Amino acid sequence: MQEFDLPRRLAAEALGTAILVATVVGSGVMAETLTKDVALALLGNTLPTGAILVVLITILGPVSGAHFNPAVSLVFALKGELTPRETPLYILAQIAGGIAGTVIAHGMFALPLIDVSLKMRTGGAQWFAEAVAAFGLIATILGGIRFNLAAVPWLVGLYITAAYWFTASTSFANPAVAIARALTNTFSGIRPVDLPGFIVAETCGALVALAVMGWLLGGSAIKEARP
Amino acid sequence: MQEFDLPRRLAAEALGTAILVATVVGSGVMAETLTKDVALALLGNTLPTGAILVVLITILGPVSGAHFNPAVSLVFALKGELTPRETPLYILAQIAGGIAGTVIAHGMFALPLIDVSLKMRTGGAQWFAEAVAAFGLIATILGGIRFNLAAVPWLVGLYITAAYWFTASTSFANPAVAIARALTNTFSGIRPVDLPGFIVAETCGALVALAVMGWLLGGSAIKEARP
Amino acid sequence: MQEFDLPRRLAAEALGTAILVATVVGSGVMAETLTKDVALALLGNTLPTGAILVVLITILGPVSGAHFNPAVSLVFALKGELTPRETPLYILAQIAGGIAGTVIAHGMFALPLIDVSLKMRTGGAQWFAEAVAAFGLIATILGGIRFNLAAVPWLVGLYITAAYWFTASTSFANPAVAIARALTNTFSGIRPVDLPGFIVAETCGALVALAVMGWLLGGSAIKEARP
Amino acid sequence: MQEFDLPRRLAAEALGTAILVATVVGSGVMAETLTKDVALALLGNTLPTGAILVVLITILGPVSGAHFNPAVSLVFALKGELTPRETPLYILAQIAGGIAGTVIAHGMFALPLIDVSLKMRTGGAQWFAEAVAAFGLIATILGGIRFNLAAVPWLVGLYITAAYWFTASTSFANPAVAIARALTNTFSGIRPVDLPGFIVAETCGALVALAVMGWLLGGSAIKEARP
Repeated sequence: MQEFDLPRRLAAEALGTAILVATVVGSGVMAETLTKDVALALLGNTLPTGAILVVLITILGPVSGAHFNPAVSLVFALKGELTPRETPLYILAQIAGGIAGTVIAHGMFALPLIDVSLKMRTGGAQWFAEAVAAFGLIATILGGIRFNLAAVPWLVGLYITAAYWFTASTSFANPAVAIARALTNTFSGIRPVDLPGFIVAETCGALVALAVMGWLLGGSAIKEARP
Repeated sequence: MQEFDLPRRLAAEALGTAILVATVVGSGVMAETLTKDVALALLGNTLPTGAILVVLITILGPVSGAHFNPAVSLVFALKGELTPRETPLYILAQIAGGIAGTVIAHGMFALPLIDVSLKMRTGGAQWFAEAVAAFGLIATILGGIRFNLAAVPWLVGLYITAAYWFTASTSFANPAVAIARALTNTFSGIRPVDLPGFIVAETCGALVALAVMGWLLGGSAIKEARP
Repeated sequence: MQEFDLPRRLAAEALGTAILVATVVGSGVMAETLTKDVALALLGNTLPTGAILVVLITILGPVSGAHFNPAVSLVFALKGELTPRETPLYILAQIAGGIAGTVIAHGMFALPLIDVSLKMRTGGAQWFAEAVAAFGLIATILGGIRFNLAAVPWLVGLYITAAYWFTASTSFANPAVAIARALTNTFSGIRPVDLPGFIVAETCGALVALAVMGWLLGGSAIKEARP
Repeated sequence: MQEFDLPRRLAAEALGTAILVATVVGSGVMAETLTKDVALALLGNTLPTGAILVVLITILGPVSGAHFNPAVSLVFALKGELTPRETPLYILAQIAGGIAGTVIAHGMFALPLIDVSLKMRTGGAQWFAEAVAAFGLIATILGGIRFNLAAVPWLVGLYITAAYWFTASTSFANPAVAIARALTNTFSGIRPVDLPGFIVAETCGALVALAVMGWLLGGSAIKEARP
């Protein structure tokens, strides 16, 4: 990561999150337009998301780390691999990029560029699902970095492919993407009022994963931030 | 495997089996909720299971071997790669983790945490299918370890993806997962009364694979257990 | 291939072709049982076949070359990499294994162990499709061996995944598998009377690929058989 | 690329584009023949296209670079990696190969060998979608070449798998393939009159990607053409 200056790293985070959200939102619109079978629509939403994650993490990971996700950046900040100054900038870039992704998807499908979702996603089961989803994502990333760094793009893509289906919430697992998805009233949307519950649950799941995997992988994964 | 102490190895077996079962059960619930087409539901059950296996074996394999399956642990015990003391502990961790996986899936989908399956899966054809499924799984693992260790997570994920469809039983191929699936009355369940037939068939298939692949790969795969 | 004696190599060819055919036939039965949508059934037939090919070629390729296909063995015989004595034995092992695969699949699904297909697959367009299918398969294998040997299991699995859909015949591309599929009256069957047309077309496509790729990859791929 | 002479390189471009178009068109015909669910048809069009791209780029990339796409050749010409003499020959080979691909697909499905599409694909949203699709494709290629050359076949296959769904135009992203698709009146067709808008949009998206990725990857990607 030393190789790339901060503007390029922030641009990579914004660009990657934008393409990720454009994929999530765009494929959701495509899918619900083409079929009435919701399982098939979810499949048409899942496969593109998993596939694009492999691509984005491979081509942008060496630039910025390819977090595309404030929960991931928080974990790396706690591990001391992102400085206290960089962390909020990463998160802002991710949120801005995510919103741009929704706008791009809407532009491609000739929808109003910004909308407000009416899709209710709330309640204890959904929050538990989001915590599980984020736990699994962070466990995947930390385990992958530890044992097979080159496989991390694949592992994240495959994990999200699975988590779309095994978590009741279809695994947002990403506060920046959740915010961007509040701005589309389509298949993949979420009501803005439901955002806080999701974001809190995702953060909790990520922190539990940091603790559990820190122990399991053989030592504390929490180090001091760099001076 | 020397690198990790027994508690961490058992925790890895329990955690991995839990996430595996949560994926099998959870994606089954998601799929049958979203569609009436059973083939599509099976696809929504298959892809997440195959995908999560690649992830789990990659991130937990270096800790515990990533068996997640008493039939696999039995084979490694017979090959002398798991001690007589470790083997029952591995199996207990897998069963406990599997049950936790069902509970987690039920929690995410707001179902009673433990239930009893009413889905009948019995008879000679089903048992033969389970034996074939376990044969193929063990052949995949032994051949993969012999010729391309790094590919084993992929091979297992792909094998199970195929076996969901080509075996009449949808390839449980795993006694611990079968027990956990007896505790859910959803898409992927199995009646508790049908468990013994499945477990016996899976064990037989695994032992035949150990013998066949032991010969085919050019020497006896059965060694003495470590002293 | 020197490493393994001829009985093991023939056993690998028979075992691999058996599992391949059990997957093709078994997943076809599963798919047509679960859905009335033929595209979905074809998908449920395609994904397992592609997946199992990656597995089988990885775990048996180092033993026998993992041909599982008389057209492939013929090409390697013409390249001098299989002796005139070995070639007919390979082909016999593949045919015997393939028939066993149909029997295994029927056993798992509680069908009569051997049946006769009534599914008509004939005519110029089908034959042209089979020639294209075999051309592509041989081109994939020869190009893969030349440039990325480790990727060959993946390339073959992916090629067949594509060819199921882009060839009008769903890409048998394999005389031994075609014979085995004549013995099942299910989704993946073919009338015995239609076999000769398929086998001739597959052989022609394979030979054209050998010639075209021999030139394209920069030298004659046809060498004398070993003395 | 020095290793192969120009005739072989042009043959590789033509052959690869032919098989790519045969896959796109052929799988589209297969899919729309087998189902009335358009999302399922798109899935039956997507998976084969993604899969064959991995194969074709692996087996032909070392011969010609495996562009199969005038927009890609243009980018490499601007980067100085294709000479001004080679570039138009590459593009001609791609267009000729693409048209042959449509003819091959039609031959396999017993359709008139050449037809004219009546499927309207036009308007600002579609053009924006094509520009986004080409932007993403070029970003994928440039980032992949920079950071993980061996993964490029996979990255392109996965990118197109995603882009089929997240772009409103199903991501042609390729002027030669677009021309070939104007000659089929089936699922994947495009009216000839709509070609100019698509080709201009694709070219613009590719050039923007060249500029953006040139900056992001840490230096100008635009060099002088070789003398």
